[in-house]
Formats: sequence, C-alpha cells, structure tokens
Amino acid sequence: MLKIAIDAMGGDFGPTPIADGLIVALKKNKHFKAIIVGDQEQLLPLIPHKFQDRVEILHTTDVISMHDSATDALKRKESTAYRAIELVRNGEADAYVSAGHSGASMSLATLRIGRIKGVSRPAIATLMPTENGNTFVLDVGANVDCDAKNLFEFAVMGQAYAEDILDIDSPLLGLLSNGEEESKGNEVTKEAFPLLEKLPNFVGNVEGNDIFNGSTDVVICDGFIGNIMLKAAEGVADTIGKIIKNNLRRSLVSITGAVLMRKVFKKLKLKVDYAEYGGAPLLGVKAPVIIAHGKSNARAMQNAIFQAITAAESSLNADIEEKLANYQG
Amino acid sequence: MLKIAIDAMGGDFGPTPIADGLIVALKKNKHFKAIIVGDQEQLLPLIPHKFQDRVEILHTTDVISMHDSATDALKRKESTAYRAIELVRNGEADAYVSAGHSGASMSLATLRIGRIKGVSRPAIATLMPTENGNTFVLDVGANVDCDAKNLFEFAVMGQAYAEDILDIDSPLLGLLSNGEEESKGNEVTKEAFPLLEKLPNFVGNVEGNDIFNGSTDVVICDGFIGNIMLKAAEGVADTIGKIIKNNLRRSLVSITGAVLMRKVFKKLKLKVDYAEYGGAPLLGVKAPVIIAHGKSNARAMQNAIFQAITAAESSLNADIEEKLANYQG
Repeated sequence: MLKIAIDAMGGDFGPTPIADGLIVALKKNKHFKAIIVGDQEQLLPLIPHKFQDRVEILHTTDVISMHDSATDALKRKESTAYRAIELVRNGEADAYVSAGHSGASMSLATLRIGRIKGVSRPAIATLMPTENGNTFVLDVGANVDCDAKNLFEFAVMGQAYAEDILDIDSPLLGLLSNGEEESKGNEVTKEAFPLLEKLPNFVGNVEGNDIFNGSTDVVICDGFIGNIMLKAAEGVADTIGKIIKNNLRRSLVSITGAVLMRKVFKKLKLKVDYAEYGGAPLLGVKAPVIIAHGKSNARAMQNAIFQAITAAESSLNADIEEKLANYQG
Repeated sequence: MLKIAIDAMGGDFGPTPIADGLIVALKKNKHFKAIIVGDQEQLLPLIPHKFQDRVEILHTTDVISMHDSATDALKRKESTAYRAIELVRNGEADAYVSAGHSGASMSLATLRIGRIKGVSRPAIATLMPTENGNTFVLDVGANVDCDAKNLFEFAVMGQAYAEDILDIDSPLLGLLSNGEEESKGNEVTKEAFPLLEKLPNFVGNVEGNDIFNGSTDVVICDGFIGNIMLKAAEGVADTIGKIIKNNLRRSLVSITGAVLMRKVFKKLKLKVDYAEYGGAPLLGVKAPVIIAHGKSNARAMQNAIFQAITAAESSLNADIEEKLANYQG
C-alpha cells in the first residue's frame, strides 16, 4: 500500500489543517497510508482512533521556520522536513507533502531524494486558472537563473506531467516570451527555442496573456519570471476583487443584488483559488514531492495528498527519464 | 507655443480616432499646436475649419505597418513615423505621439532624436492600476536583455518622472524580484541592488503583487519581464471579467441586479482600463515621446497628447540628465 510522508508541522496554521485534510483524504481513498512527522503530543489527539492503523506518527519537534534559510535545512537533521524526506529517500514512504518552508523542501528533496537521470535542475510547477480550465506553468520559483538546457528539460517534464497526471492528449507547449515571433525573446529563450522545436507539441513563443486564455496547456519560463508572473497574477486578482467589493458596498441597495453577487464570488473563488488545486509539484526528483502553500487549509492539504498519490501511482518519473534519454540520445 | 508632432496614420483604426482625440485636446487646452503627419486627403476632412490654424498637415502616405520590422523603419524616410520624428529632431516640434508600430517609434526616437546624456538605453514605462491609484513600471518592453547599469538608469528616470509628471513627493522605488530579502534576485538584479541603494527612496526588492497593492510608486525591471508581467496582468483581468460575466448571465434573475452590476463594471473599467492613462512614455530620449496603444480610441489619444504636453512643459529631461550626472560623478 502507498505510503505518503507528511511534514505535519511546517504550515502557517500548525498541524490542525494538515491533520484535518489528511483525515478527509483517508476517508475518500482507502488505498494509502500516511506517516506524519511532528510533535506526537500535538498530533495524536488530531487523529481519530479509527484511522490510527493507517497513520503512523514519527515524533520529532524541530521545525524549519519561514525565517530559516534553505541551506540551514540540510544541517537540521531532526527537523520534520528532513525526517519526512529521509523516509522517502530510504524507501519507507513513496511521496512527500509539506506546507512548510518551500525552499527547504526543494533543497532537501533535490539533494537527499536526488534528481531523475537527465534532469539538471528540478522545477516547481503550478496550475494557473483560465476561463474554462487551467494552464500548467513551470518553473515558478525553484531556479532563478536558467540556461537553455534547463528550459528544455522543464518543457519535457511539463509535457510528461500534462500527459500522465492532467490526462491531456498531446498537450500544447509554449515558451514564455515578449512576443510570438521566433525572433522575440531574451538571450536564454532565443537559445532555448531551437531545442524546444525538437518537441512535437511545441507551438513556439507565447505571451503573458496566453497563460490565462487557455490557448496553451504547458508554459515554460525560468523561476525568476515564473515567480514574478505568479505573484503579479495574484495581485491583479486581489485588486480587482477589492474594487468590486468596495463598489458593491457603495451601490448595493437591494438584498437581491447582494445574494446574486455572493453566488458570483463563490463561483469565481472556485476558479481562481489556487488552494483548490492543492500544492505545487516539484518535478525532476526521484519521488513525488508536493509543496503546498504555507496558508493551506484542510481542503488544500487534502488535494495536495491526492496529488502526491496520483503522481506516485503514475509512470511520470519513468516517462520523464525516458523522454530525456530519447531527446538527448 | 508648444508644437506636438503626431503620426496620424499608424493606429489600428486609421486616422479618425487620432484626429477626434486631437480635436478634443485642442478644445480643452488652447496653448498648443499640432503637426499631423499623414495622407492629406484623409486628414483634411477630419479637422474642423475652426481648428485649421492650430493644426498643420504634413503630407506623406507611407505607413509602417505592424508586419514591418523596427529596423526597416530607419530606411523608410517618407513614412509618417519617420517624418514626425524628424520634426522633433529638427526643432520644428517639441514632442512626438504615435499609436503606430511601437518598435519603429522607439528605434526612430532613440536614433534620430537621440538619448539624454548619461542614458545608455531609453525605457518604456506604463502605469499599472492599484485599488486607489497606480504604480509606474519600467521597462515594459524597450530592452529585452538589461544589465545592472541599465536598471539603475531606469530607476533614476522613473523617479524623475514620478516627481515631475506624476507629482509624487519622494516616490518610493522598488526593484522587481522573486522575494523581498536582499539575497533574492537573479544575477542582474543582485548586481543592480547595490547601485539602486544609492537612491534615497529605494525600498529594496519588491514582488509581483506589490505592483498592484500600492506599496511602491515606481517599480524597476527589464523589458522582457515587464512585457510578460504587463500582458499577464491584462490576461488575468480579461479572464476574471469573462468569468464574472458568464456567471452573471446564468444567475441574474432580476433587473435590479443587472442595473447594479452595470454600475460596477463601469467603475471597474475606469480603474483598470489602461487606455484611460493615454500612452506609454519612452524615457531617456531628448524630447517627449508617447507611444499610444495601437487600439487607442479618441479618449486615449487625447490623453496621450496631454501627456506629451505635460512632459514638454516640465523639466523632466533636464532633471534626468542632472540626476544621472550627480550619481555617476
């Protein structure tokens, strides 16, 4: 039976939403077990008796906080993140989920679990919302300065994820640039363009708005740009939400209108709420690693656990290795 | 009296919205004249008799289209953009406005009007909307690959524009990065950081969402990232608008609700409509150059003309030259 290692202490809201999300996941899917790593005293009361045979608690109390550096994480061998990663490294667990320090999880996963053969650098990916679906974007933060070969590997990994996990046949792949023409791009993307042309579903350069209009399934960029784009998108959504709410408050005179708008906001939230997708997968390491948002609620954690299970049950990593070997051969 | 040179043919909708915007501007501000460059036969009927003493038509019919390359623009000496730029170069006009090929306008302005002393590369800037105001961002497309010195110059130009044109006392200046800590950034922004620290109002690194939350007045980035961020922001706004409209159509059952929502959309449009701001100034050339959107309507053109007038009447370029000389001295 699949075993998921969970850093139970790293989230901004402590272990409660993490345990709550796990319990719902255990109810919905009876085919996995979890090893939760953290303070036994806090964790034990959060796991109902009926689930205790499917949840093992690995006791440790050191937690890497948001103020610690990712490099410190490698020395803190008793931390919840380190111990949970070691479970995967040692084969005692099949996948890792954490809502803690994302840099620490990335460093530990890359160095302790190790990279898939052919991958120079793992990349973190996320789903961005479109009107009727979403776009898979990577890298959104693992690698600040990338070269053309890194971008090519991200493209191969993104395509494999879209096929194996998102169930998209022949996912369309775009390279994020400042214009659609092949002549557009910065030094790195111009060098990456001919490498990506080896991939059959490469549609060429795409622009910032293409991430949100559903024209492409997978969009490739370096982690510096991906991070800025992601946060800018969240910033725009927040600002529009505030403008709408302020104007509504001023102009709403009827209960009818208020009820209607509550419906709209609820639907809007379902589509643009990134928590709904669970966490961000770190692609390119030898086991599934899901980085959930620090502010994840129980529902986000449940979805992050399901993401880890889906990835662990898939042939994703074998496919990435095979594709990279084919293109480099 | 100030003279504004206007490329009257370059916009996506031909000369009509350009002439209409000019006429309103002439009515509102009696202290400038315009030289409009384009096809006399098309332009003459668009200018009412009472304004003909304030509008000179410079006849030429070649128009640089969106399909032409910016480098071709330098050879097309009879084009509307080239002729209008030459008016500024020769001192026959004080500023240039165009809704045509933006790359052509940028190249012509940089090479024919020339750069301000101390400026390595001109930058194009734009205002992004926040809940209660806006943030001035540059570069958003003129320079794809930038070095640290370029970013420093953009910061000095952005600060001068915020002070002289946007009337902001001590504008706060941020460097767009993947985190607020000084240790964050890519190779170029890390090298730029200590240069920007020379500027008294530098607040350090800012993130993508800071552009939209009003925390900073001026945000600095290279033109590749600026272009992607700008188009991503537009993409998010478009997508949210579509989701709201679709959900409203499905759920609206009362006329009350519909009327209320029309009000909200109207207010929202006023705040997030980039056209409302006019055009994007190209900073760092020896005369004001305003690049309006190809799809500019009359109102956007009117605002672009007012921007050109404000810049021409200000001490902006002298201030940029002086600040750069001070910091480099």
